[in-house]
Amino acid sequence: MNIVLLSGGSGKRLWPLSNDIRSKQFIKIFKGEDGSYESMVQRVYRQICQVDSDARVTIATSRSQVSAIHNQLGEHVGICVEPCRRDTFPAIALATAYLHDVQGISEEEAVVVCPVDPYVEQGYFEALKELGELAEHTWANLVLMGIEPTYPSEKYGYIIPADQERVSKVSTFKEKPDAETAEAYIRQGALWNGGVFAYKLKYVLKKAHELIDFTDYEDLFEKYDTLEKISFDYAVVEKEDDIQVLRFSGQWKDLGTWNTLTEAMEEASVGECMLSDTCENVHVINELDVPVLCMGLKDVVVSASPEGILVSDKEQSSYIKPFVDQIDQQIMFAEKSWGSFRVLDIEDESMTIKVTLNPGHSMNYHSHERRDEVWTIISGSGRTIVDGMEQPVTAGDVITMQAGCRHTIIADTELKVIEVQLGKEISVHDKQKFELEQ
Amino acid sequence: MNIVLLSGGSGKRLWPLSNDIRSKQFIKIFKGEDGSYESMVQRVYRQICQVDSDARVTIATSRSQVSAIHNQLGEHVGICVEPCRRDTFPAIALATAYLHDVQGISEEEAVVVCPVDPYVEQGYFEALKELGELAEHTWANLVLMGIEPTYPSEKYGYIIPADQERVSKVSTFKEKPDAETAEAYIRQGALWNGGVFAYKLKYVLKKAHELIDFTDYEDLFEKYDTLEKISFDYAVVEKEDDIQVLRFSGQWKDLGTWNTLTEAMEEASVGECMLSDTCENVHVINELDVPVLCMGLKDVVVSASPEGILVSDKEQSSYIKPFVDQIDQQIMFAEKSWGSFRVLDIEDESMTIKVTLNPGHSMNYHSHERRDEVWTIISGSGRTIVDGMEQPVTAGDVITMQAGCRHTIIADTELKVIEVQLGKEISVHDKQKFELEQ
Repeated sequence: MNIVLLSGGSGKRLWPLSNDIRSKQFIKIFKGEDGSYESMVQRVYRQICQVDSDARVTIATSRSQVSAIHNQLGEHVGICVEPCRRDTFPAIALATAYLHDVQGISEEEAVVVCPVDPYVEQGYFEALKELGELAEHTWANLVLMGIEPTYPSEKYGYIIPADQERVSKVSTFKEKPDAETAEAYIRQGALWNGGVFAYKLKYVLKKAHELIDFTDYEDLFEKYDTLEKISFDYAVVEKEDDIQVLRFSGQWKDLGTWNTLTEAMEEASVGECMLSDTCENVHVINELDVPVLCMGLKDVVVSASPEGILVSDKEQSSYIKPFVDQIDQQIMFAEKSWGSFRVLDIEDESMTIKVTLNPGHSMNYHSHERRDEVWTIISGSGRTIVDGMEQPVTAGDVITMQAGCRHTIIADTELKVIEVQLGKEISVHDKQKFELEQ
Repeated sequence: MNIVLLSGGSGKRLWPLSNDIRSKQFIKIFKGEDGSYESMVQRVYRQICQVDSDARVTIATSRSQVSAIHNQLGEHVGICVEPCRRDTFPAIALATAYLHDVQGISEEEAVVVCPVDPYVEQGYFEALKELGELAEHTWANLVLMGIEPTYPSEKYGYIIPADQERVSKVSTFKEKPDAETAEAYIRQGALWNGGVFAYKLKYVLKKAHELIDFTDYEDLFEKYDTLEKISFDYAVVEKEDDIQVLRFSGQWKDLGTWNTLTEAMEEASVGECMLSDTCENVHVINELDVPVLCMGLKDVVVSASPEGILVSDKEQSSYIKPFVDQIDQQIMFAEKSWGSFRVLDIEDESMTIKVTLNPGHSMNYHSHERRDEVWTIISGSGRTIVDGMEQPVTAGDVITMQAGCRHTIIADTELKVIEVQLGKEISVHDKQKFELEQ
């Protein structure tokens, strides 16, 4: 199966674990099969591979997520980078052109599109496979997954099927209704629209050419920033008559708020934590190295990360966004394609960070105009290149770099470094990248 | 006035702000007169000096608090160090001998003894002064402060005065009663015993010599660890007939738990914090550099420090001790006589700390057997001495020290240093101190 996972933008609603550069799908919060924790994207990727070991997975996302995706899923996953955010129709058009022009997928093959972050059972991915098969072999131009509603939600759009069969023609779509209308829809047999669908590659390619003037993937990529922001639902789905829907009645959760996310946690806490017996329905996600102690709380979520600490009533947690919008803070932790960094200390004219490089990886070869740097290697071994000079390094070695000096570090084993940045105007934007002459 | 402030032991009940090495009296939580925050000990010391600028203040405490006291009150405050903990009678005997033998105070002068951490108005210290004057000039051997009860507390001992005068003879003492008995006492005119009293120096000196075989302060200090643990109440107060009590009806609070401490806070939060409108009776004390966001909480205290994070119902917070006893953690922050340090990162074979030295101060000249160290100066200027060699240092300088090498750093201005410790067995006990040969 060809599957495109839409990996959306910054998820402030799960602050402090998600922020401008870390989206919720990368938070490691679910107990995986080997007991270690995995993120939503890792969980979904693992589930897809278990259902279809030949699945061709392409993640449609922005440039800012590429490092985290490679870090969590490895180098081999397909990534279709959107040069900028342009809603779902341009994103799906670009991913479709990418599959056709870059990956060489036949126009007759089906493509399944799915968000990157549903919290679901294995059966969901069986259903995705079936969705693709239907798209390849039936009369419909689009095949949607319709989720059996468990309550009259106001959060979802509804699909009204023509009949009660497992696979049926779609009669009409309804926008997010109020609870009463939702109840009426459900009595008519309506299904939730979870944004999951399949099509024959050539169908979306044709739609894309109808609506956008482009030649191929590369051309579309080049002019991506000029495209109109428009959703796939609006541009394609609502105008299409030949749509089928496949009913799905298994577990399906949209983990968009702390309230829903904590419902999916298998344990009351992740990370170092103590809960008194007087706590009731309390969840703690602690990414810090120090303990969290909770006493006498009810219906509360506590989340601590290098970015900050949230303590919220679970219901109230869905109103978090305006508060997080007010926080204008230095990014304290980030996953990069080569590893990760964490800010340890900030002063007026210095910043101290801890850098962890994965084995075999290296930073870009770069320099800074307005800061000196000192690296102290605290574990592992590798090599540094400073102004063209390569030298082996290991724990205890210290490398000092003046502003302007070009430098990188290459990890042979996992390598951890304390980096002290010194200067009056320390900024992530003060970075010039260079090609390594080797 | 001669005043002895009893500065008690580790206060786990205010974890994570207090711990084995930082007692609650050193937490900077009260808005001082200039808008900056002050600790209990700073507040009390300031209040005493305002009431009596000639007051001779002596803090009776353990060795572990000396650094924090000097750091918060300066070098000039008197400190009487107890070599080990031996309850209040030995502590008061030692402090009294110290005042007589070291400070040269006359036997005829009064000494006022008071805990270091009452949360009170200025009038309280006026009353202390009066207490001293009564001790010097009346017939009583002991003059106690009796606090007008505001409710039938089960937490305090009660003083039953012989009459209802402002100053009266004490008829008897009652141990901590149950609420019903407390109410009966209060109807009889009983007062709370806040552990505050005054005596003529010679009176306690005589009692000390009756109960302990010693010659002078130095001798008492030497044999301090052989002394019996016994309270001043039990050894002296309960056996004395000639006791007066002075009524005090002003504000008096004992800030021993998060619940009572937060009642004394003038603002809902100290440190970086956001509270939603849906929060009610919520207090936050955040010592970290990242924001705390609270939503929809009621009657909750949140406290975050480098040691950990507490989120507790206020009532429940008084049951904290057994939980904190379970935490066996590296000390993450400490005040020292020369400044402070904070642990930034811990790995198996390294530890990274930030050291702040106050101007004019220096570390001990010392070495480590089992670890190397790297200092990167991030701000200020001063001098390092490494194996006898002195050199000036300023921001950007890096000093590497092998295990065994003797070193110190002297701050000319405030000096901040990132120290990376490297070795297999990093321990605070791996430290040999040396005299500087200069």
